[in-house]
Amino acid sequence: MQFLVRMEVRLPHDMPADVADDLRARERERAHEIQRAGKWPELWRVVGRYANVSRFDVDSGDELHQLLSSLPLFPYMDVEVTALTVHPSKLES
Amino acid sequence: MQFLVRMEVRLPHDMPADVADDLRARERERAHEIQRAGKWPELWRVVGRYANVSRFDVDSGDELHQLLSSLPLFPYMDVEVTALTVHPSKLES
Amino acid sequence: MQFLVRMEVRLPHDMPADVADDLRARERERAHEIQRAGKWPELWRVVGRYANVSRFDVDSGDELHQLLSSLPLFPYMDVEVTALTVHPSKLES
Amino acid sequence: MQFLVRMEVRLPHDMPADVADDLRARERERAHEIQRAGKWPELWRVVGRYANVSRFDVDSGDELHQLLSSLPLFPYMDVEVTALTVHPSKLES
Amino acid sequence: MQFLVRMEVRLPHDMPADVADDLRARERERAHEIQRAGKWPELWRVVGRYANVSRFDVDSGDELHQLLSSLPLFPYMDVEVTALTVHPSKLES
Amino acid sequence: MQFLVRMEVRLPHDMPADVADDLRARERERAHEIQRAGKWPELWRVVGRYANVSRFDVDSGDELHQLLSSLPLFPYMDVEVTALTVHPSKLES
Amino acid sequence: MQFLVRMEVRLPHDMPADVADDLRARERERAHEIQRAGKWPELWRVVGRYANVSRFDVDSGDELHQLLSSLPLFPYMDVEVTALTVHPSKLES
Amino acid sequence: MQFLVRMEVRLPHDMPADVADDLRARERERAHEIQRAGKWPELWRVVGRYANVSRFDVDSGDELHQLLSSLPLFPYMDVEVTALTVHPSKLES
Amino acid sequence: MQFLVRMEVRLPHDMPADVADDLRARERERAHEIQRAGKWPELWRVVGRYANVSRFDVDSGDELHQLLSSLPLFPYMDVEVTALTVHPSKLES
Amino acid sequence: MQFLVRMEVRLPHDMPADVADDLRARERERAHEIQRAGKWPELWRVVGRYANVSRFDVDSGDELHQLLSSLPLFPYMDVEVTALTVHPSKLES
Repeated sequence: MQFLVRMEVRLPHDMPADVADDLRARERERAHEIQRAGKWPELWRVVGRYANVSRFDVDSGDELHQLLSSLPLFPYMDVEVTALTVHPSKLES
Repeated sequence: MQFLVRMEVRLPHDMPADVADDLRARERERAHEIQRAGKWPELWRVVGRYANVSRFDVDSGDELHQLLSSLPLFPYMDVEVTALTVHPSKLES
Repeated sequence: MQFLVRMEVRLPHDMPADVADDLRARERERAHEIQRAGKWPELWRVVGRYANVSRFDVDSGDELHQLLSSLPLFPYMDVEVTALTVHPSKLES
Repeated sequence: MQFLVRMEVRLPHDMPADVADDLRARERERAHEIQRAGKWPELWRVVGRYANVSRFDVDSGDELHQLLSSLPLFPYMDVEVTALTVHPSKLES
Repeated sequence: MQFLVRMEVRLPHDMPADVADDLRARERERAHEIQRAGKWPELWRVVGRYANVSRFDVDSGDELHQLLSSLPLFPYMDVEVTALTVHPSKLES
Repeated sequence: MQFLVRMEVRLPHDMPADVADDLRARERERAHEIQRAGKWPELWRVVGRYANVSRFDVDSGDELHQLLSSLPLFPYMDVEVTALTVHPSKLES
Repeated sequence: MQFLVRMEVRLPHDMPADVADDLRARERERAHEIQRAGKWPELWRVVGRYANVSRFDVDSGDELHQLLSSLPLFPYMDVEVTALTVHPSKLES
Repeated sequence: MQFLVRMEVRLPHDMPADVADDLRARERERAHEIQRAGKWPELWRVVGRYANVSRFDVDSGDELHQLLSSLPLFPYMDVEVTALTVHPSKLES
Repeated sequence: MQFLVRMEVRLPHDMPADVADDLRARERERAHEIQRAGKWPELWRVVGRYANVSRFDVDSGDELHQLLSSLPLFPYMDVEVTALTVHPSKLES
Repeated sequence: MQFLVRMEVRLPHDMPADVADDLRARERERAHEIQRAGKWPELWRVVGRYANVSRFDVDSGDELHQLLSSLPLFPYMDVEVTALTVHPSKLES
């Protein structure tokens, strides 16, 4: 199944820099793992924001929630999920 | 340049069926052309809506506007464009 | 997969009564078919509105979109879809 | 009476982990009690969010408010309630 | 059960004046019936709008929906329903 | 004059429990005074929220503001006021 | 009593020009009457919109509603009313 | 030039009372100065809110910004500005 | 004075093509006149929309309203105006 | 490429004055650099707000994101980006 996901990150302003750096480092590592597993084929930064838009390719909504909630920055994210389906005008790639 | 585009189509309820069919047929044809040119790599239907979310890969905002406004359904669409950039956690594919 | 679906129906005020009646009769029939297939376990009217909130139990987002777009009232609906997953506090029934 | 309820949880970022853990454990326990009493037949997590959508089957709005405000996480929740009624296309189960 | 109801009326501009007058006359008659039955204790016009805010005192959400959808202007209304309960600071009257 | 008033209370999460208790006790006392003066004939809790919807019967907007700002919880409230007038379909009570 | 009123006018595009002209002429006449009565001390056009912001000085919300609904353009207006009161920093004029 | 200005004040809940009192005292003083200069002819409190709606009569947007940002409460305000112009139905006063 | 202006055009779908073409031709002509007068220094199309964002350099809000309402497409536009002032970090050009 | 950018700054109220002053000084310096490079041709303050609207002239969305995120106040900004293109009614300057 395909889902469009938009994640907006809001770190508290009083979070110590080293805590934030550690979170971001672990976030990147976890993002790499999920990409290597083929579950996160599209990942783009939104220009001007601490946010991304992504496409996930997963077996189910259950799996998507497990992946998203495994991200170290998840407690600081506002996440919006849109279910996608094949478009009739899409060419076979 | 990469852009996320969401298009929501609203055909007037009193449009004759053959006019709508013709519009949709020409829309599909034009969508195929743009995809074949490598400009529209992601095209997905939003579940439950007459809408799509897409990624366009274009040279500029000027080109994106020309492509979008060349779609036969453009006068009936509500289009939202989000500029994207490389995400630092994205793996090379 | 489980999805929460909210459908809001807006029939044009100038639609002839018999056309509307026919649409509604066919809508009910199709709704019965989908329920009998076990795909639409929850279906409730929103108090005070020509709207429903529903839960669909489907194999995929693709199937959900096919079911929703097969409803005769679909062209007159505003549909919002929310992907659901198991809740950790849910008791086995 | 049937109500759709959406609960969105927002714990303060500076809440100590053990306080949050205790709140969540007590929340789960209370959720189980209400489910065992047959008052909370539908409980689903929203994919990607610390939120749920639920259906409550209660005697009145008074009872619903008592149940919701008895949840240990209630002070940290944003709760939206929608009154439901029987849908004319719903099949007897 | 008590419900706050806000009804906003939007008549199509091309509705003939006699049709609108007839609708409004029947609306008033039906509103009187429901008030006489003790089901509609509060009914106020919103200053500056073709809208009202009301309190209904009904047995259930089912009954409220039946009452609202029996109003001749119902097809032209946007209705919002809020479930109410006893307030702990309310004095016995 | 009649006004619909909706008050939503948001206490800071770090407010000490005794301070909050004291505020709430004084709020209840003041609410009783205003009700006894006949100025606050309708007061209902919104199901699922720390909020109320009320009708005030006052001499003027000046008086309403004085009453509302005399509430001990006023600094923590989001208050929305809607001016009301007699509805032409309202029966004499 | 003082009220801030914002009126946004939306004439149907298919209204014949002479009907619209007549409406506007009668609107102006009625607006002059209300101003001469001292009830409408502030009346300003919003730059770039077919809209105004106004202050009304009336005896009650009832009177304000009667004045507003007596305007020939009232059926084509979206009207928002905000109740005002004396500001503690306002100088005597 | 005429501008409608709406100012909503939000003081942090942990601001010491004497700091807030001092801010408010200086705010009043500055408001008096601007009024005496003839720049702030309309100033009203919004009923039920720590907010005002005002009309400023200034030479330019530059002057308006200087006046607004000179208010001691400015850092705690959410300010919305609407440009106004003469209304064609306005009577000479 | 400087103003940011966003204009969104919505032509009725049933407007005859020649009427629309004539409107657009006269719109362009008028836009050229205003630019030549030095009043409209910035004019950009929003990518994907029948909309523009502009900066106007005018003597007053009165002049801005006269210019905007002189545009042949004005009756079909939704216009939002934002008053601007010099930015302290702006370099002399 | 041309982009409209709106930046709204929200400094935490408990930020020490010298930290805020230092941030603002470095922000101004960096804004000057970007302007001198010809990348930020329009920069205006929004009247009444700690906000600006700007036009950036950049090679790509990537470059725009790098410029915006290089601003010292970026972590405290809410930034909205709108892609622009040539307007057909724009005169050659």
